[in-house]
Amino acid sequence: MINTLYLPEIREMLVDRDSEGLRDFSGALHPARTAEFMEGLTAAESWVVLRAAQPYLRAQIFGYFDEDRQIEIVQTCNRQEVSELITDMPADDCVDLLEEVDPAVVEEILPLLPVDDRRDILRLREYPEGTAGSVMTTEVARLPETMTVRDALLEIGRQSQELETIYYIYIVDGESHLRGLVSARQLVANLGKEDTCVADLMERDLVTVYGHDDQEVVADKVANYDFLAIPVVDNEQRLLGIVTHDDIIDVLLEEAEEDAYLAGAINPLQESYLETPWYTLAWKRGLWLFILSMAALLTVIALQGYENVLKEVTWLALFIPLIISCGGNSGGQSATLVITSLTTGDLKLSEWRQVLWRELIMGLALGTGLAALGYVFAVVLITDATSVQKLVIPITLLLVVVTGTVCGGALPLVFRRLGLDPALMSNPFVAGIIDVAGILIYMAVAVAMLDELQVLFAK
Amino acid sequence: MINTLYLPEIREMLVDRDSEGLRDFSGALHPARTAEFMEGLTAAESWVVLRAAQPYLRAQIFGYFDEDRQIEIVQTCNRQEVSELITDMPADDCVDLLEEVDPAVVEEILPLLPVDDRRDILRLREYPEGTAGSVMTTEVARLPETMTVRDALLEIGRQSQELETIYYIYIVDGESHLRGLVSARQLVANLGKEDTCVADLMERDLVTVYGHDDQEVVADKVANYDFLAIPVVDNEQRLLGIVTHDDIIDVLLEEAEEDAYLAGAINPLQESYLETPWYTLAWKRGLWLFILSMAALLTVIALQGYENVLKEVTWLALFIPLIISCGGNSGGQSATLVITSLTTGDLKLSEWRQVLWRELIMGLALGTGLAALGYVFAVVLITDATSVQKLVIPITLLLVVVTGTVCGGALPLVFRRLGLDPALMSNPFVAGIIDVAGILIYMAVAVAMLDELQVLFAK
Repeated sequence: MINTLYLPEIREMLVDRDSEGLRDFSGALHPARTAEFMEGLTAAESWVVLRAAQPYLRAQIFGYFDEDRQIEIVQTCNRQEVSELITDMPADDCVDLLEEVDPAVVEEILPLLPVDDRRDILRLREYPEGTAGSVMTTEVARLPETMTVRDALLEIGRQSQELETIYYIYIVDGESHLRGLVSARQLVANLGKEDTCVADLMERDLVTVYGHDDQEVVADKVANYDFLAIPVVDNEQRLLGIVTHDDIIDVLLEEAEEDAYLAGAINPLQESYLETPWYTLAWKRGLWLFILSMAALLTVIALQGYENVLKEVTWLALFIPLIISCGGNSGGQSATLVITSLTTGDLKLSEWRQVLWRELIMGLALGTGLAALGYVFAVVLITDATSVQKLVIPITLLLVVVTGTVCGGALPLVFRRLGLDPALMSNPFVAGIIDVAGILIYMAVAVAMLDELQVLFAK
Repeated sequence: MINTLYLPEIREMLVDRDSEGLRDFSGALHPARTAEFMEGLTAAESWVVLRAAQPYLRAQIFGYFDEDRQIEIVQTCNRQEVSELITDMPADDCVDLLEEVDPAVVEEILPLLPVDDRRDILRLREYPEGTAGSVMTTEVARLPETMTVRDALLEIGRQSQELETIYYIYIVDGESHLRGLVSARQLVANLGKEDTCVADLMERDLVTVYGHDDQEVVADKVANYDFLAIPVVDNEQRLLGIVTHDDIIDVLLEEAEEDAYLAGAINPLQESYLETPWYTLAWKRGLWLFILSMAALLTVIALQGYENVLKEVTWLALFIPLIISCGGNSGGQSATLVITSLTTGDLKLSEWRQVLWRELIMGLALGTGLAALGYVFAVVLITDATSVQKLVIPITLLLVVVTGTVCGGALPLVFRRLGLDPALMSNPFVAGIIDVAGILIYMAVAVAMLDELQVLFAK
């Protein structure tokens, strides 16, 4: 939905080349709102508006544009002006953007950047996607230990345009080793004692992460400690950058989306659903469907061994979908519970005994319930069998549900133990495995219970 | 895993009643770490440590304790001292805690609180779980418009102990109407111009939420605008409180967990997996399993109509699990994609035509692939049928997969349109519906294709 509220006015100002009006418009609202109101413009038109904006607002508004528009602007507009805009962007966002831009254009823009910014961008590009380094910003407030509260406040006030946050100020020595942290809150609270040295206020016991740490580790720490930002250091404890709360929120949203896709047996998408080309989507889905259908092939083979049984006792075939769906659903529930608890950190691998015990109890409880229900179905629906023969259905259901819950609980733990992502053992995969087990159990119970079949197999 | 690093020292200090030593310990680390190191103590012991801590640290350390320990302390320790601790906690956390405490104890504690705190708590308790009001804090930095930068900094410095954040300062009039927002960053950046009035700096176009807004709405706005906090107002734009970035992270984690549970057909849990009593869990799982088994009952009934067919052509039964799993999995994928995209806001209800069109194409592409695979299976595994008869399997697979993808894409949209949570139409439920459709398609194709059956049905 494009917000067209101010569009006529902006268009008019564009036609009149009214740069003063455009500057006023671009400064009147939060940059995110300004960007929203500009969605109806072409990339070239929005570039004209940006150029009219106050320099410090340009990169901020630009940062809220759609990625497609950002790429178009970088690729088509004046290289020199674009490089100035990029200089004002947080280095991490800049790296993400340049990765999507035509490499030939990037080669033209990089030499136009100030040497410091270029070096930051080149360094950040070395961190693989999904690491702390790839989401950190290098624009950090750094001060020496010897500064007083008053000087520190003045200094960060001066630097504030270039910094992503001024609320956490990192105290470093001459070689960038991280010594401590002072919050703007502490500085403000000590305004009455302005000659206090920051070294006397600073927190020395810092929680840090390494550049190559997984972004999930970073998010967990920030969520656990309620930090505004977390410092990223190298092996010698030198400060490389920080990951801020807004980046953490993006990481959490990204991870939740990935987990949701895996739980639905889809390879996580890079772009949104409607923007992903159909052949990419078909590949990301088809691959898993292929694996799952291979699992389903095993059910066909398992059933084939009992073709004679099914021919003699046709009503057994009617209950196949019910039995595999009960097993798959109860197993899927167990897998979901264990995967989610592992993800949130509520459950540790060392608690596997409790999990198996719980799932066994749960399987017995749920299995008994479904068996009772299944017996009612069997009595009502099967006409050509004795009461005892109909017990095949409830007995199978109980066994299948117990198998389902125990396997569903165990498989994600096994995957975690093997160092694999437990989410791979989610709903559809657990269901695929339990389907085969369910068929084998069903047929084994049927053969054991039905007299005719025993005769048949004795032949 | 309990961290026992400092436990011997703490125990020794407790025995020696060395309150100075305990005070030093409790102030040396981040409150979250301090709380971690205290996990090995009993509730009574940790209360002794807390009493030795600096007053302003007590509530912070307490805030990082496990909920069970917090409840035990509140219920067993001196009411007067507990009420002082509670006064120092953020009002929102306090309300969450008191909800878990024995109501008789709450009745004893409430009268001991200062009248302002008591009023805040009583007001926050009125907001239902999951609303902006229930996660907001009322300890907000509020200043009048007429203050200068210097006075504002001094004032928030003075108040900083009581406030959850001092980084966003809200400008209000005499009746608490929200006029604007000044960030601590702006104040610090204007330290050189200390006589500037905050009214000249403040942002007037504020993004706000109402107390009864859903917490997901709040989280979306904060994530979208990269805010540190968002103000909560009433219908007359009076400032009630703020929701801060750390609360938003908690909301996002909670919502992701809820969505994961729904996708696995489990009613969201209040407590962690291992802490939930087995009968509660059995109920939350059993309810959905019951509904799903009712859907599976329909497959039994559908198949029963074709019992004669299955008796004549037994190999049809072998492929039942393969066909329903292909339909269920491809439909589950579509449902996951649509639900996740609706949740993240990437997809809007108005784009339903594109979704259906995409899923039709996707169903044809994936269905053709699975049909080819299915034909190979059929040729290899079925021995007693002609090549033409074996076409039943690929034709059914293609039709079932297309039905699956289109239904899987459509059902969450229908649920959203009806004002229901689209997550209810996730994997297991879509699979349940498609199972029935799959069986009906399978049998219809079989009857149409197999000459013998046409004869059978003509009888």
